[in-house]
Amino acid sequence: MTYCLAIKVDRGLVFASDSCTSAGVDYVTTYSKMHSFIWPEDRAIFILTSGNLATTQAVINNIRRHLDDPDADFDLRQARHMFEIAHYIGTLSQTEQRQHADAAKHANISIEASFIVGGQINGRPPEILLIYPQGNYISASPQTPFLQIGENKYGKPILDRMITGDTTLEDAARCALVSLDSTMRSNLSVGPPLEVAIYQKDGLDTPRRLKLTLSTPLFQALQTRWNEGLQHAFRELPRFDWE
Amino acid sequence: MTYCLAIKVDRGLVFASDSCTSAGVDYVTTYSKMHSFIWPEDRAIFILTSGNLATTQAVINNIRRHLDDPDADFDLRQARHMFEIAHYIGTLSQTEQRQHADAAKHANISIEASFIVGGQINGRPPEILLIYPQGNYISASPQTPFLQIGENKYGKPILDRMITGDTTLEDAARCALVSLDSTMRSNLSVGPPLEVAIYQKDGLDTPRRLKLTLSTPLFQALQTRWNEGLQHAFRELPRFDWE
Repeated sequence: MTYCLAIKVDRGLVFASDSCTSAGVDYVTTYSKMHSFIWPEDRAIFILTSGNLATTQAVINNIRRHLDDPDADFDLRQARHMFEIAHYIGTLSQTEQRQHADAAKHANISIEASFIVGGQINGRPPEILLIYPQGNYISASPQTPFLQIGENKYGKPILDRMITGDTTLEDAARCALVSLDSTMRSNLSVGPPLEVAIYQKDGLDTPRRLKLTLSTPLFQALQTRWNEGLQHAFRELPRFDWE
Repeated sequence: MTYCLAIKVDRGLVFASDSCTSAGVDYVTTYSKMHSFIWPEDRAIFILTSGNLATTQAVINNIRRHLDDPDADFDLRQARHMFEIAHYIGTLSQTEQRQHADAAKHANISIEASFIVGGQINGRPPEILLIYPQGNYISASPQTPFLQIGENKYGKPILDRMITGDTTLEDAARCALVSLDSTMRSNLSVGPPLEVAIYQKDGLDTPRRLKLTLSTPLFQALQTRWNEGLQHAFRELPRFDWE
Protein backbone atom coordinates (compact mmCIF):
# COMPACT_ATOMS: atom_id res chain seq x y z
CA MET A 1 0.00 0.00 0.00
CA THR A 2 0.99 3.61 -0.30
CA TYR A 3 0.27 6.95 1.21
CA CYS A 4 1.29 10.14 -0.62
CA LEU A 5 0.04 13.67 -0.22
CA ALA A 6 0.56 17.16 -1.55
CA ILE A 7 -0.32 20.41 0.21
CA LYS A 8 -0.79 23.79 -1.44
CA VAL A 9 -0.39 26.85 0.77
CA ASP A 10 0.08 30.51 -0.11
CA ARG A 11 3.86 30.24 0.20
CA GLY A 12 4.27 27.16 -1.97
CA LEU A 13 3.85 23.41 -2.09
CA VAL A 14 4.76 20.41 0.05
CA PHE A 15 4.94 16.85 -1.27
CA ALA A 16 5.35 13.80 0.95
CA SER A 17 5.36 10.05 0.41
CA ASP A 18 6.08 6.75 2.08
CA SER A 19 8.24 4.14 0.29
CA CYS A 20 6.60 0.81 1.03
CA THR A 21 5.47 -1.30 -1.91
CA SER A 22 3.78 -4.61 -1.40
CA ALA A 23 2.54 -7.31 -3.72
CA GLY A 24 0.99 -9.29 -0.88
CA VAL A 25 2.46 -9.45 2.60
CA ASP A 26 5.33 -11.71 1.50
CA TYR A 27 6.79 -9.38 -1.12
CA VAL A 28 7.29 -6.03 0.55
CA THR A 29 9.89 -3.77 -0.99
CA THR A 30 11.05 -0.19 -0.86
CA TYR A 31 10.63 2.13 -3.82
CA SER A 32 10.65 5.88 -3.97
CA LYS A 33 7.25 7.21 -4.98
CA MET A 34 8.39 10.79 -5.44
CA HIS A 35 9.78 11.90 -8.78
CA SER A 36 10.95 15.41 -9.50
CA PHE A 37 11.76 17.12 -12.78
CA ILE A 38 13.43 20.50 -12.34
CA TRP A 39 14.51 22.99 -15.00
CA PRO A 40 15.78 25.92 -12.91
CA GLU A 41 14.11 29.26 -13.68
CA ASP A 42 11.63 27.51 -15.98
CA ARG A 43 9.65 24.80 -14.20
CA ALA A 44 9.65 22.44 -11.24
CA ILE A 45 7.40 19.38 -11.47
CA PHE A 46 6.79 16.72 -8.84
CA ILE A 47 4.99 13.44 -9.38
CA LEU A 48 3.79 11.11 -6.61
CA THR A 49 2.64 7.60 -7.46
CA SER A 50 0.27 5.05 -5.95
CA GLY A 51 -1.17 1.75 -7.10
CA ASN A 52 0.22 -0.96 -9.33
CA LEU A 53 4.01 -0.64 -9.45
CA ALA A 54 4.33 -1.87 -13.04
CA THR A 55 1.84 0.78 -14.18
CA THR A 56 3.46 3.64 -12.24
CA GLN A 57 6.97 2.66 -13.37
CA ALA A 58 5.81 2.46 -16.99
CA VAL A 59 4.30 5.95 -16.73
CA ILE A 60 7.47 7.44 -15.22
CA ASN A 61 9.61 5.61 -17.82
CA ASN A 62 7.52 7.01 -20.64
CA ILE A 63 7.75 10.52 -19.19
CA ARG A 64 11.57 10.20 -19.20
CA ARG A 65 11.60 8.65 -22.67
CA HIS A 66 9.60 11.53 -24.12
CA LEU A 67 12.01 14.01 -22.53
CA ASP A 68 14.88 12.25 -24.35
CA ASP A 69 13.04 12.12 -27.65
CA PRO A 70 13.20 15.33 -29.68
CA ASP A 71 10.33 14.05 -31.85
CA ALA A 72 7.93 13.39 -28.96
CA ASP A 73 4.51 14.96 -29.43
CA PHE A 74 4.48 16.17 -25.86
CA ASP A 75 6.77 16.19 -22.85
CA LEU A 76 7.00 17.90 -19.46
CA ARG A 77 9.00 20.81 -20.91
CA GLN A 78 6.39 21.60 -23.56
CA ALA A 79 3.46 21.94 -21.14
CA ARG A 80 2.11 25.46 -20.69
CA HIS A 81 -0.33 24.57 -17.94
CA MET A 82 -0.08 22.06 -15.11
CA PHE A 83 -3.42 20.50 -16.11
CA GLU A 84 -1.88 19.55 -19.47
CA ILE A 85 0.64 17.48 -17.54
CA ALA A 86 -2.16 15.89 -15.52
CA HIS A 87 -3.94 15.03 -18.77
CA TYR A 88 -0.68 13.63 -20.20
CA ILE A 89 -0.04 11.42 -17.15
CA GLY A 90 -3.66 10.24 -17.18
CA THR A 91 -3.32 9.28 -20.86
CA LEU A 92 -0.03 7.42 -20.27
CA SER A 93 -1.61 5.59 -17.33
CA GLN A 94 -4.71 4.59 -19.31
CA THR A 95 -2.62 3.46 -22.29
CA GLU A 96 -0.49 1.27 -20.05
CA GLN A 97 -3.50 -0.18 -18.25
CA ARG A 98 -5.29 -0.96 -21.51
CA GLN A 99 -2.30 -2.96 -22.77
CA HIS A 100 -2.56 -5.36 -19.85
CA ALA A 101 -6.29 -5.15 -19.11
CA ASP A 102 -7.27 -8.60 -20.40
CA ALA A 103 -4.44 -10.43 -18.64
CA ALA A 104 -5.06 -8.50 -15.42
CA LYS A 105 -8.77 -9.26 -15.50
CA HIS A 106 -8.01 -12.91 -16.13
CA ALA A 107 -5.65 -12.98 -13.11
CA ASN A 108 -8.05 -10.89 -11.01
CA ILE A 109 -5.28 -8.33 -10.39
CA SER A 110 -5.75 -4.58 -10.25
CA ILE A 111 -3.32 -2.67 -12.43
CA GLU A 112 -4.87 0.69 -11.57
CA ALA A 113 -2.68 3.60 -10.49
CA SER A 114 -3.24 7.08 -9.10
CA PHE A 115 -0.91 10.05 -9.28
CA ILE A 116 -0.46 13.48 -7.80
CA VAL A 117 1.32 16.01 -9.97
CA GLY A 118 2.26 19.47 -8.84
CA GLY A 119 4.75 22.24 -9.14
CA GLN A 120 5.04 25.46 -11.06
CA ILE A 121 5.60 26.57 -14.63
CA ASN A 122 7.25 29.98 -15.01
CA GLY A 123 4.64 32.72 -15.23
CA ARG A 124 1.87 30.59 -13.74
CA PRO A 125 0.84 29.90 -10.13
CA PRO A 126 1.88 26.73 -8.28
CA GLU A 127 -0.65 23.95 -8.58
CA ILE A 128 -1.38 20.41 -7.43
CA LEU A 129 -3.62 17.89 -9.20
CA LEU A 130 -4.77 14.35 -8.49
CA ILE A 131 -5.05 11.94 -11.42
CA TYR A 132 -7.52 9.09 -10.96
CA PRO A 133 -6.93 5.56 -12.31
CA GLN A 134 -9.39 6.37 -15.12
CA GLY A 135 -7.13 9.19 -16.31
CA ASN A 136 -9.32 12.12 -15.26
CA TYR A 137 -8.08 14.61 -12.68
CA ILE A 138 -9.00 17.22 -10.11
CA SER A 139 -7.13 20.12 -8.52
CA ALA A 140 -7.05 21.14 -4.85
CA SER A 141 -9.38 23.89 -3.66
CA PRO A 142 -8.86 26.78 -1.22
CA GLN A 143 -11.22 24.97 1.21
CA THR A 144 -9.34 21.67 0.92
CA PRO A 145 -5.79 22.70 0.03
CA PHE A 146 -4.38 19.19 -0.04
CA LEU A 147 -4.65 16.02 -2.12
CA GLN A 148 -3.99 12.43 -1.07
CA ILE A 149 -3.54 9.10 -2.86
CA GLY A 150 -3.33 5.57 -1.47
CA GLU A 151 -4.22 4.86 2.14
CA ASN A 152 -5.62 8.33 2.73
CA LYS A 153 -8.13 8.14 5.58
CA TYR A 154 -6.01 7.62 8.70
CA GLY A 155 -3.97 10.73 7.99
CA LYS A 156 -6.80 13.03 6.87
CA PRO A 157 -8.19 14.34 10.20
CA ILE A 158 -4.95 16.15 11.12
CA LEU A 159 -4.80 17.79 7.68
CA ASP A 160 -8.45 18.83 7.98
CA ARG A 161 -7.69 20.52 11.28
CA MET A 162 -4.34 22.14 10.58
CA ILE A 163 -3.92 23.15 6.95
CA THR A 164 -5.14 26.52 5.69
CA GLY A 165 -3.80 28.83 3.00
CA ASP A 166 -1.63 30.80 5.41
CA THR A 167 0.06 27.76 6.98
CA THR A 168 3.84 28.12 6.60
CA LEU A 169 5.69 25.67 4.38
CA GLU A 170 7.50 24.26 7.41
CA ASP A 171 4.25 23.74 9.33
CA ALA A 172 2.71 22.11 6.26
CA ALA A 173 5.73 19.76 6.06
CA ARG A 174 5.42 18.93 9.78
CA CYS A 175 1.71 18.27 9.32
CA ALA A 176 2.47 15.97 6.38
CA LEU A 177 4.92 14.03 8.57
CA VAL A 178 2.36 13.71 11.39
CA SER A 179 -0.20 12.55 8.83
CA LEU A 180 2.25 9.94 7.51
CA ASP A 181 3.17 8.87 11.05
CA SER A 182 -0.50 8.34 12.01
CA THR A 183 -1.02 6.30 8.86
CA MET A 184 2.04 4.12 9.48
CA ARG A 185 0.84 3.36 13.01
CA SER A 186 -2.60 2.29 11.79
CA ASN A 187 -1.57 0.47 8.59
CA LEU A 188 1.49 -1.77 8.48
CA SER A 189 1.72 -1.58 4.70
CA VAL A 190 2.65 2.11 4.75
CA GLY A 191 6.31 2.48 5.71
CA PRO A 192 9.57 4.40 5.74
CA PRO A 193 11.70 5.98 4.48
CA LEU A 194 9.51 9.04 4.22
CA GLU A 195 10.33 11.60 1.57
CA VAL A 196 9.39 15.26 1.73
CA ALA A 197 9.90 18.00 -0.83
CA ILE A 198 9.26 21.63 0.06
CA TYR A 199 8.80 23.93 -2.91
CA GLN A 200 8.77 27.68 -2.35
CA LYS A 201 6.39 29.64 -4.60
CA ASP A 202 8.20 31.28 -7.54
CA GLY A 203 11.40 29.47 -6.51
CA LEU A 204 11.52 27.52 -9.79
CA ASP A 205 14.56 25.83 -8.41
CA THR A 206 15.57 22.68 -6.60
CA PRO A 207 13.32 22.27 -3.56
CA ARG A 208 14.35 21.33 -0.06
CA ARG A 209 14.33 17.54 0.13
CA LEU A 210 14.22 15.37 3.24
CA LYS A 211 14.45 11.61 3.50
CA LEU A 212 13.55 10.33 6.95
CA THR A 213 13.90 6.84 8.37
CA LEU A 214 12.63 5.64 11.75
CA SER A 215 16.10 6.36 13.18
CA THR A 216 16.40 9.91 11.84
CA PRO A 217 16.66 12.12 14.97
CA LEU A 218 14.26 14.73 13.55
CA PHE A 219 11.59 12.11 12.89
CA GLN A 220 12.12 10.46 16.27
CA ALA A 221 11.77 13.85 17.98
CA LEU A 222 8.64 14.61 15.98
CA GLN A 223 7.05 11.27 16.90
CA THR A 224 7.89 11.68 20.58
CA ARG A 225 6.72 15.29 20.86
CA TRP A 226 3.52 14.63 18.96
CA ASN A 227 2.69 11.66 21.14
CA GLU A 228 3.42 13.66 24.30
CA GLY A 229 1.35 16.56 22.97
CA LEU A 230 -1.61 14.29 22.24
CA GLN A 231 -1.38 12.68 25.69
CA HIS A 232 -1.35 16.15 27.23
CA ALA A 233 -4.30 17.31 25.11
CA PHE A 234 -6.17 14.17 26.09
CA ARG A 235 -5.58 14.74 29.81
CA GLU A 236 -6.98 18.26 29.45
CA LEU A 237 -10.33 17.12 28.03
CA PRO A 238 -13.42 18.01 30.12
CA ARG A 239 -14.61 15.55 32.76
CA PHE A 240 -18.05 13.97 32.87
CA ASP A 241 -20.30 15.39 35.58
CA TRP A 242 -19.99 12.27 37.77
CA GLU A 243 -16.18 12.37 37.85
CA MET B 1 -22.62 5.94 6.39
CA THR B 2 -22.04 4.97 9.97
CA TYR B 3 -19.32 4.89 12.55
CA CYS B 4 -19.70 2.76 15.69
CA LEU B 5 -17.08 1.43 18.06
CA ALA B 6 -16.71 -0.58 21.22
CA ILE B 7 -13.78 -0.48 23.63
CA LYS B 8 -12.87 -3.15 26.16
CA VAL B 9 -10.73 -2.09 29.10
CA ASP B 10 -10.02 -3.80 32.40
CA ARG B 11 -12.77 -1.86 34.16
CA GLY B 12 -15.50 -2.55 31.63
CA LEU B 13 -16.82 -1.63 28.22
CA VAL B 14 -17.63 1.52 26.27
CA PHE B 15 -19.94 1.60 23.26
CA ALA B 16 -20.35 4.64 21.01
CA SER B 17 -22.21 5.36 17.78
CA ASP B 18 -23.25 8.13 15.46
CA SER B 19 -26.86 8.36 14.25
CA CYS B 20 -26.66 9.35 10.60
CA THR B 21 -28.24 7.05 8.04
CA SER B 22 -28.12 7.81 4.36
CA ALA B 23 -29.52 6.18 1.29
CA GLY B 24 -27.69 8.54 -1.04
CA VAL B 25 -27.01 12.18 -0.21
CA ASP B 26 -30.64 13.18 -0.71
CA TYR B 27 -32.13 10.85 1.87
CA VAL B 28 -30.24 11.41 5.09
CA THR B 29 -32.05 10.48 8.28
CA THR B 30 -31.36 9.95 11.94
CA TYR B 31 -31.63 6.52 13.53
CA SER B 32 -30.17 5.22 16.74
CA LYS B 33 -27.63 2.50 16.02
CA MET B 34 -27.22 1.46 19.64
CA HIS B 35 -29.56 -1.14 21.11
CA SER B 36 -29.32 -2.38 24.68
CA PHE B 37 -30.93 -5.37 26.37
CA ILE B 38 -30.54 -5.36 30.13
CA TRP B 39 -31.70 -7.93 32.65
CA PRO B 40 -30.29 -6.57 35.93
CA GLU B 41 -28.06 -8.98 37.87
CA ASP B 42 -28.15 -11.42 34.94
CA ARG B 43 -26.89 -9.88 31.72
CA ALA B 44 -26.34 -6.62 29.88
CA ILE B 45 -26.07 -6.82 26.09
CA PHE B 46 -25.34 -3.98 23.66
CA ILE B 47 -25.65 -4.17 19.90
CA LEU B 48 -24.28 -1.58 17.46
CA THR B 49 -25.35 -1.68 13.82
CA SER B 50 -23.87 -0.60 10.50
CA GLY B 51 -24.78 -1.13 6.87
CA ASN B 52 -28.11 -1.59 5.15
CA LEU B 53 -30.84 -0.18 7.41
CA ALA B 54 -33.49 -2.71 6.29
CA THR B 55 -31.14 -5.56 7.20
CA THR B 56 -30.13 -4.14 10.59
CA GLN B 57 -33.73 -3.31 11.51
CA ALA B 58 -34.85 -6.81 10.53
CA VAL B 59 -32.14 -8.32 12.73
CA ILE B 60 -33.09 -6.17 15.74
CA ASN B 61 -36.80 -6.89 15.14
CA ASN B 62 -36.13 -10.62 15.09
CA ILE B 63 -34.08 -10.40 18.28
CA ARG B 64 -37.06 -8.68 19.99
CA ARG B 65 -39.55 -11.12 18.49
CA HIS B 66 -37.63 -14.12 19.81
CA LEU B 67 -37.54 -12.54 23.27
CA ASP B 68 -41.36 -12.28 23.16
CA ASP B 69 -41.80 -15.84 21.90
CA PRO B 70 -41.64 -18.51 24.61
CA ASP B 71 -41.19 -21.16 21.89
CA ALA B 72 -38.15 -19.50 20.26
CA ASP B 73 -35.21 -21.88 19.77
CA PHE B 74 -32.81 -19.22 20.99
CA ASP B 75 -32.91 -15.71 22.39
CA LEU B 76 -30.58 -13.28 24.15
CA ARG B 77 -31.60 -14.59 27.59
CA GLN B 78 -30.74 -18.19 26.73
CA ALA B 79 -27.15 -17.50 25.66
CA ARG B 80 -24.45 -18.78 27.98
CA HIS B 81 -21.55 -17.20 26.10
CA MET B 82 -21.31 -13.91 24.27
CA PHE B 83 -20.01 -15.68 21.13
CA GLU B 84 -23.31 -17.58 20.94
CA ILE B 85 -25.03 -14.22 20.60
CA ALA B 86 -22.56 -13.18 17.90
CA HIS B 87 -23.32 -16.42 16.05
CA TYR B 88 -27.06 -15.82 16.47
CA ILE B 89 -26.85 -12.26 15.11
CA GLY B 90 -24.69 -13.44 12.22
CA THR B 91 -27.26 -16.10 11.36
CA LEU B 92 -30.16 -13.63 11.52
CA SER B 93 -28.22 -11.23 9.31
CA GLN B 94 -27.38 -13.89 6.73
CA THR B 95 -30.97 -15.17 6.69
CA GLU B 96 -32.29 -11.68 6.07
CA GLN B 97 -29.71 -10.97 3.35
CA ARG B 98 -30.43 -14.24 1.55
CA GLN B 99 -34.15 -13.42 1.35
CA HIS B 100 -33.43 -10.28 -0.66
CA ALA B 101 -30.18 -11.30 -2.38
CA ASP B 102 -31.58 -11.70 -5.90
CA ALA B 103 -33.51 -8.44 -5.88
CA ALA B 104 -30.56 -6.58 -4.36
CA LYS B 105 -28.16 -7.97 -6.97
CA HIS B 106 -30.60 -7.04 -9.72
CA ALA B 107 -30.79 -3.46 -8.37
CA ASN B 108 -27.02 -3.34 -7.70
CA ILE B 109 -27.68 -2.46 -4.05
CA SER B 110 -25.69 -3.73 -1.09
CA ILE B 111 -27.85 -5.17 1.68
CA GLU B 112 -24.83 -6.13 3.79
CA ALA B 113 -24.66 -5.22 7.46
CA SER B 114 -22.07 -5.40 10.22
CA PHE B 115 -22.66 -5.51 13.95
CA ILE B 116 -20.78 -5.14 17.19
CA VAL B 117 -22.18 -7.04 20.14
CA GLY B 118 -20.83 -6.80 23.64
CA GLY B 119 -21.67 -6.87 27.29
CA GLN B 120 -21.56 -9.38 30.06
CA ILE B 121 -23.40 -12.53 31.08
CA ASN B 122 -23.37 -13.23 34.83
CA GLY B 123 -20.40 -15.40 35.78
CA ARG B 124 -18.47 -14.64 32.62
CA PRO B 125 -16.09 -11.79 31.72
CA PRO B 126 -17.22 -8.76 29.67
CA GLU B 127 -16.65 -9.20 25.95
CA ILE B 128 -17.01 -7.41 22.63
CA LEU B 129 -17.32 -9.07 19.22
CA LEU B 130 -17.58 -7.82 15.63
CA ILE B 131 -19.93 -9.67 13.27
CA TYR B 132 -19.04 -9.43 9.58
CA PRO B 133 -21.65 -9.19 6.80
CA GLN B 134 -20.95 -12.88 6.05
CA GLY B 135 -22.08 -13.82 9.56
CA ASN B 136 -18.68 -14.80 10.96
CA TYR B 137 -17.22 -12.87 13.88
CA ILE B 138 -14.08 -11.89 15.79
CA SER B 139 -13.43 -10.68 19.32
CA ALA B 140 -11.13 -7.85 20.44
CA SER B 141 -7.61 -8.70 21.63
CA PRO B 142 -5.51 -7.32 24.49
CA GLN B 143 -3.25 -5.68 21.87
CA THR B 144 -6.17 -4.08 20.02
CA PRO B 145 -8.84 -3.68 22.71
CA PHE B 146 -11.40 -2.02 20.45
CA LEU B 147 -13.63 -2.90 17.50
CA GLN B 148 -15.06 -0.58 14.84
CA ILE B 149 -17.74 -0.86 12.15
CA GLY B 150 -18.62 1.52 9.34
CA GLU B 151 -16.35 4.44 8.47
CA ASN B 152 -13.55 3.24 10.74
CA LYS B 153 -10.29 4.66 9.44
CA TYR B 154 -10.45 8.37 10.27
CA GLY B 155 -11.02 7.65 13.95
CA LYS B 156 -8.57 4.78 14.35
CA PRO B 157 -5.25 6.60 14.94
CA ILE B 158 -6.40 8.18 18.22
CA LEU B 159 -7.62 4.80 19.50
CA ASP B 160 -4.33 3.18 18.49
CA ARG B 161 -2.45 5.77 20.51
CA MET B 162 -4.63 6.08 23.61
CA ILE B 163 -6.42 2.85 24.48
CA THR B 164 -4.77 0.19 26.62
CA GLY B 165 -6.19 -2.26 29.12
CA ASP B 166 -5.73 0.07 32.08
CA THR B 167 -7.43 3.09 30.47
CA THR B 168 -10.28 4.24 32.73
CA LEU B 169 -13.84 3.91 31.49
CA GLU B 170 -14.19 7.70 31.42
CA ASP B 171 -10.98 8.12 29.39
CA ALA B 172 -12.14 5.39 27.02
CA ALA B 173 -15.46 7.23 26.58
CA ARG B 174 -13.64 10.53 25.94
CA CYS B 175 -11.40 8.78 23.40
CA ALA B 176 -14.47 7.34 21.67
CA LEU B 177 -15.93 10.85 21.43
CA VAL B 178 -12.69 12.26 19.99
CA SER B 179 -12.62 9.37 17.51
CA LEU B 180 -16.23 10.12 16.49
CA ASP B 181 -15.50 13.86 16.26
CA SER B 182 -12.50 13.29 13.97
CA THR B 183 -14.62 11.03 11.76
CA MET B 184 -17.47 13.56 11.55
CA ARG B 185 -15.05 16.29 10.49
CA SER B 186 -13.59 14.14 7.71
CA ASN B 187 -16.78 12.45 6.51
CA LEU B 188 -20.04 14.34 6.20
CA SER B 189 -22.12 11.15 6.24
CA VAL B 190 -21.24 10.43 9.89
CA GLY B 191 -23.29 12.67 12.16
CA PRO B 192 -24.91 13.47 15.48
CA PRO B 193 -26.46 12.80 17.86
CA LEU B 194 -23.70 10.68 19.32
CA GLU B 195 -24.65 7.96 21.77
CA VAL B 196 -22.34 6.54 24.40
CA ALA B 197 -22.91 3.70 26.85
CA ILE B 198 -20.45 3.04 29.66
CA TYR B 199 -20.72 -0.41 31.20
CA GLN B 200 -18.83 -1.15 34.39
CA LYS B 201 -17.43 -4.67 34.70
CA ASP B 202 -19.63 -6.93 36.86
CA GLY B 203 -22.19 -4.13 37.06
CA LEU B 204 -24.83 -6.23 35.26
CA ASP B 205 -27.06 -3.24 35.47
CA THR B 206 -28.18 -0.28 33.44
CA PRO B 207 -25.10 1.48 32.11
CA ARG B 208 -24.41 5.17 32.05
CA ARG B 209 -25.87 6.55 28.83
CA LEU B 210 -25.08 9.82 27.10
CA LYS B 211 -26.69 11.33 24.05
CA LEU B 212 -24.73 14.28 22.69
CA THR B 213 -25.72 16.75 19.99
CA LEU B 214 -23.51 19.46 18.51
CA SER B 215 -25.02 21.90 21.01
CA THR B 216 -24.46 19.77 24.12
CA PRO B 217 -22.09 21.83 26.31
CA LEU B 218 -19.96 18.80 27.20
CA PHE B 219 -19.42 17.93 23.54
CA GLN B 220 -18.72 21.54 22.61
CA ALA B 221 -16.16 21.78 25.42
CA LEU B 222 -14.57 18.52 24.32
CA GLN B 223 -14.30 19.69 20.70
CA THR B 224 -12.83 23.06 21.71
CA ARG B 225 -10.32 21.65 24.18
CA TRP B 226 -9.19 18.89 21.83
CA ASN B 227 -8.69 21.34 19.00
CA GLU B 228 -6.74 23.69 21.28
CA GLY B 229 -4.70 20.78 22.58
CA LEU B 230 -3.82 19.64 19.06
CA GLN B 231 -2.88 23.17 18.02
CA HIS B 232 -0.63 23.40 21.07
CA ALA B 233 0.93 19.98 20.40
CA PHE B 234 1.50 21.02 16.79
CA ARG B 235 3.25 24.26 17.80
CA GLU B 236 5.60 22.25 20.05
CA LEU B 237 6.84 20.00 17.23
CA PRO B 238 10.60 20.20 16.49
CA ARG B 239 11.83 22.75 13.92
CA PHE B 240 13.77 21.89 10.78
CA ASP B 241 17.46 22.79 10.97
CA TRP B 242 17.07 25.76 8.61
CA GLU B 243 14.33 27.41 10.69
